[in-house]
Amino acid sequence: MPSVSVFGAAGFTGALTARILHRHPSFELRCLTARSDQGRRLDDLYPHHRVPIELEELDIERHAEVDAAVVAYPHGAAAPLVSELRARGVRVVDLSADFRLHDPALYGRWYREHQAPELLDRAVYGLPERYRQEIAKADLVANPGCYPTASLLALAPLARASVIEDVIIDAKSGVSGAGRAPSEKTHFVTADENVNAYGVPRHRHIPEIEQELSALGAELRITFVPHLVPLDQGELVSCYVTLADPDADIDLGQLYAEAYATEPFVELADTPPGMRDVRETNICRISVHRDERTGRVIVFAAIDNLWKGAASQAVQNLNLMFGLPEEEGIGPVRFGTREAVR
Amino acid sequence: MPSVSVFGAAGFTGALTARILHRHPSFELRCLTARSDQGRRLDDLYPHHRVPIELEELDIERHAEVDAAVVAYPHGAAAPLVSELRARGVRVVDLSADFRLHDPALYGRWYREHQAPELLDRAVYGLPERYRQEIAKADLVANPGCYPTASLLALAPLARASVIEDVIIDAKSGVSGAGRAPSEKTHFVTADENVNAYGVPRHRHIPEIEQELSALGAELRITFVPHLVPLDQGELVSCYVTLADPDADIDLGQLYAEAYATEPFVELADTPPGMRDVRETNICRISVHRDERTGRVIVFAAIDNLWKGAASQAVQNLNLMFGLPEEEGIGPVRFGTREAVR
Amino acid sequence: MPSVSVFGAAGFTGALTARILHRHPSFELRCLTARSDQGRRLDDLYPHHRVPIELEELDIERHAEVDAAVVAYPHGAAAPLVSELRARGVRVVDLSADFRLHDPALYGRWYREHQAPELLDRAVYGLPERYRQEIAKADLVANPGCYPTASLLALAPLARASVIEDVIIDAKSGVSGAGRAPSEKTHFVTADENVNAYGVPRHRHIPEIEQELSALGAELRITFVPHLVPLDQGELVSCYVTLADPDADIDLGQLYAEAYATEPFVELADTPPGMRDVRETNICRISVHRDERTGRVIVFAAIDNLWKGAASQAVQNLNLMFGLPEEEGIGPVRFGTREAVR
Amino acid sequence: MPSVSVFGAAGFTGALTARILHRHPSFELRCLTARSDQGRRLDDLYPHHRVPIELEELDIERHAEVDAAVVAYPHGAAAPLVSELRARGVRVVDLSADFRLHDPALYGRWYREHQAPELLDRAVYGLPERYRQEIAKADLVANPGCYPTASLLALAPLARASVIEDVIIDAKSGVSGAGRAPSEKTHFVTADENVNAYGVPRHRHIPEIEQELSALGAELRITFVPHLVPLDQGELVSCYVTLADPDADIDLGQLYAEAYATEPFVELADTPPGMRDVRETNICRISVHRDERTGRVIVFAAIDNLWKGAASQAVQNLNLMFGLPEEEGIGPVRFGTREAVR
Repeated sequence: MPSVSVFGAAGFTGALTARILHRHPSFELRCLTARSDQGRRLDDLYPHHRVPIELEELDIERHAEVDAAVVAYPHGAAAPLVSELRARGVRVVDLSADFRLHDPALYGRWYREHQAPELLDRAVYGLPERYRQEIAKADLVANPGCYPTASLLALAPLARASVIEDVIIDAKSGVSGAGRAPSEKTHFVTADENVNAYGVPRHRHIPEIEQELSALGAELRITFVPHLVPLDQGELVSCYVTLADPDADIDLGQLYAEAYATEPFVELADTPPGMRDVRETNICRISVHRDERTGRVIVFAAIDNLWKGAASQAVQNLNLMFGLPEEEGIGPVRFGTREAVR
Repeated sequence: MPSVSVFGAAGFTGALTARILHRHPSFELRCLTARSDQGRRLDDLYPHHRVPIELEELDIERHAEVDAAVVAYPHGAAAPLVSELRARGVRVVDLSADFRLHDPALYGRWYREHQAPELLDRAVYGLPERYRQEIAKADLVANPGCYPTASLLALAPLARASVIEDVIIDAKSGVSGAGRAPSEKTHFVTADENVNAYGVPRHRHIPEIEQELSALGAELRITFVPHLVPLDQGELVSCYVTLADPDADIDLGQLYAEAYATEPFVELADTPPGMRDVRETNICRISVHRDERTGRVIVFAAIDNLWKGAASQAVQNLNLMFGLPEEEGIGPVRFGTREAVR
Repeated sequence: MPSVSVFGAAGFTGALTARILHRHPSFELRCLTARSDQGRRLDDLYPHHRVPIELEELDIERHAEVDAAVVAYPHGAAAPLVSELRARGVRVVDLSADFRLHDPALYGRWYREHQAPELLDRAVYGLPERYRQEIAKADLVANPGCYPTASLLALAPLARASVIEDVIIDAKSGVSGAGRAPSEKTHFVTADENVNAYGVPRHRHIPEIEQELSALGAELRITFVPHLVPLDQGELVSCYVTLADPDADIDLGQLYAEAYATEPFVELADTPPGMRDVRETNICRISVHRDERTGRVIVFAAIDNLWKGAASQAVQNLNLMFGLPEEEGIGPVRFGTREAVR
Repeated sequence: MPSVSVFGAAGFTGALTARILHRHPSFELRCLTARSDQGRRLDDLYPHHRVPIELEELDIERHAEVDAAVVAYPHGAAAPLVSELRARGVRVVDLSADFRLHDPALYGRWYREHQAPELLDRAVYGLPERYRQEIAKADLVANPGCYPTASLLALAPLARASVIEDVIIDAKSGVSGAGRAPSEKTHFVTADENVNAYGVPRHRHIPEIEQELSALGAELRITFVPHLVPLDQGELVSCYVTLADPDADIDLGQLYAEAYATEPFVELADTPPGMRDVRETNICRISVHRDERTGRVIVFAAIDNLWKGAASQAVQNLNLMFGLPEEEGIGPVRFGTREAVR
């Protein structure tokens, strides 16, 4: 049974990854490291995860003696650790942005100077619905951001059909997306009974979405604006697509049904999905609509930002990397997928 | 002192109008009618409004003996009552959609056959920041919808400058916007920890927004999608504007500062406004941003959907109609308006 | 594999029972009946449950051809259906209050005249931690109310030790406890940003708690007051126990540790449990404290009102009735139970 | 017009006091000091308060040149500043606990060594409904804690009637009660969809409540347990009173009606008050119930923890100290008070 360690398990996404792996039938969760709260047990920090394992200070010699690692470090801090782990032959799923962009110059413009550019060529973008084959063979998988996950699943069928002229993505996310660090932004009194936009107009998930849309054939400059909404977990992207030909006669239902017919974790719906529909699952729920008045296509996609947007997608990637059934430990949710496409 | 009655005071907007008028120094709140809960006192239904007045069944003879009326009936049901009240010389602010659209055919397409088309010519659209002079002389004011209020205040400066090519409005509203009637949609368990779009792709506020943008010179077909968010009161519109000339060199700060320099209830901010910033006020708080990557202009506007989106704007209109200071009973909030424009 | 039907699957607890049974490895979920929404699929009403089964109108002939039934009808309406099912040999777990009280006269005083008093003798009170042996042999199990579940687990060790003089239970419940029917009480705008008591001073769960405390040796008249809190699922009871001997030297830690040492679904904690700690689990999390100033003992117990308070406890009972591992389909959550007792 | 400064205006209660005073017709708000965020304007930190005044670093020489001060410092830090202000003749309302307890030894046991014990004799406990006359003549008013405010208003009529044998207070508070400092406790993700007790079993508000109950003739050791609930502002105390004579025939309705007949800010209700009923007001809403089964009396009292529990009560005290109408700037809410007593 492959052994896995989670590096940076005190944060929301690392802790949830630990929980999922702790119950996973085919991985052995070896150890958890953290940069704070060392010596505390994870079920002390997060009782609901029920993982009775102590958080340890990083000891690379010892902690690298595993088959795989999930790295849940902040952007910038992840690259050096990933580099060390790779040097020791550990297969890595990295939750940070550090290996998502292929172009180190682009990374430099949106983040900072890249700390391990030599690894970029080997990194596979970890969206299984797009790169399933590549992930299976990869040693380094860059887990997508939560917004790109939902946005790309929402837009991929249209991008592949080469019909997009322009797209605006208005995203809404629960507060867990802002991370565990207490701040004015994450204070209950700030977020409660409130909604506002942030990261305007240059949120860091933009280049990642553009890179992947481009790889699908849609060379675009997108507009992307996220909003914080008063709830814990959940994410919704509302995508407003201007078609190259506004009068194009596209059978959207069929396009999406075909694109996702065999996907275990993509669910199509007739009506706009709610965040609640996918809470605590690895599912992305999508609906697509045509506005006859304007010719525009509107696509909604809902995910759980901590699950499909981070932790459970990381495990989905691990499953693929180790030749396990893709749904193991994060499903089953088979039923309904194809039936939901009417 | 002019006397006012509120017709339909059991609903959220009627009840709040009653509360504001009950404390208003220059109106006498005469009576409250309701189509349900007759015989109950308003402070029994809404303790926090503290209006110790009984809800009565409509008795048009008696209840029309007032100088002014606020009608808070559903769309379609309002027109006949407004017609009766006008026939008796009562000046009316109508909260429904019945008199907002000038064209009865357009109303027919989005709602139903109009019940009092003869009054449409006399009705003034009750957005004071736009029609202050006309409202002062009007006998029938059609109070704008909550979404149009925020959207039009957000877009008016750009519309007047004739620079808009296209606009997408992604709106978010608290659950009070769905009204007092209990339903699956308004059930706590449905709305809590959830966000989803509704009214896709043809929400009824679209023609109202288009009519008023057109009157400002922007002849457009807009895309407008509202979302329900898990909070009580509040509304945010995120407007994505494609400019006719994407490279146009517009001083947005100055454009908005000039447009709203003397407006007592419009507040400009440097950062995206939150719903919480305007809760329980008649204020619309706006920020405007340029996305240099795409040339697009992004405008956010936050209001309280029950206040500026309905009840307090109705009182603002009443103030204008009766020659009172515009802020009376709903302010003062003078400070900050001009200073906030930096 | 035993077959099970859920009667009354459109409500919150019936639907959740259906979801758990749908994934249960050792039960075959045969059919779902409902008194409303017939013809709709359960995953249409509750997408997040992902149960693609249609709700049917009750056809007792056909629907009684199962090994077991879970009845999720309202109080009063359950008894006649349970009676019919028992007459056909179906083993029943009833979620209503109809078979919880042994004394039909007591039931009559708190509810209404009992419709099937002849079955009362055979009904076992379905709190597995108390009546595990009896449940295993029972044909009719009365699933406890949510408040009694938490209250009895909180108080049982003290009741058995015969040290209680008096107890006050202040309970807090999420809005799902009020059921699916939309009402003023369950309207988002009523419950949001609000807390208030209800059912004062005679809530119907009182006789059930008193009956079971009495069976443990604590003959008491309790004070019990529930409050509605603005969240979806969760329940917390705060129990204030006056000891017969206020100076009694009791090792509370040991008392509770011994009482629950082998219980898979009872978790002991050093600090007051939060509702969030047990959300979407069958776990009851308990902490016990001594107030040295007053000699009083304070016990907190948190459960998920829809899970351990209803649906998952029903499945726990079914597991016992059919000789299955108690945790099957609702666990495992073994780890932590004993370790948490320090 | 008396001038006032607010010391410690960056926190929730200091900022709200500043907002109320900024609009107060009979006080001149002179300046705001803060121990953080100096140089920022208050409407930058709290847009919804709309107070366009800069926060300054403390300069005691200059800032003490006022008639009155509201001190909103943490416990322990307040006493030295209050001491300085008093030495300069400034009349003070102190929001901290530093001058609430008459006995410095008692303060020492629950907080720390007292820094200005010589002032304790002169401090008046600032509950206007109890010490109206004394407050009018006081130079130093110790504003009560939020829990004591609600608890004492709930229990005073019974305490004065000398009928209380024992009392348990189960309190619920919104997250703003935990203050502005971001922490794990105040993180949205911790508090959302959660309720738990804290400060068990020795919360610091206990001695304050006992002192004041004792002054009313009820010498008691109370049990008091607060709980955090997922909302912004609001507080509810549920008081379970065991009577000295459980069979005593007390007309509770009359007792409370007489006690509060002329109080402008105490409201009596027939049904349990909700936090929402008093949000953003200086009102305490109370209901009293008799449990005939146990003889016990149950009293509920709801306040807004930031208003009547802190800031608006401070202004109520200032009004009294300066001979102004008690409701000025925080009312009027006259109507309903006496009528609500049925």
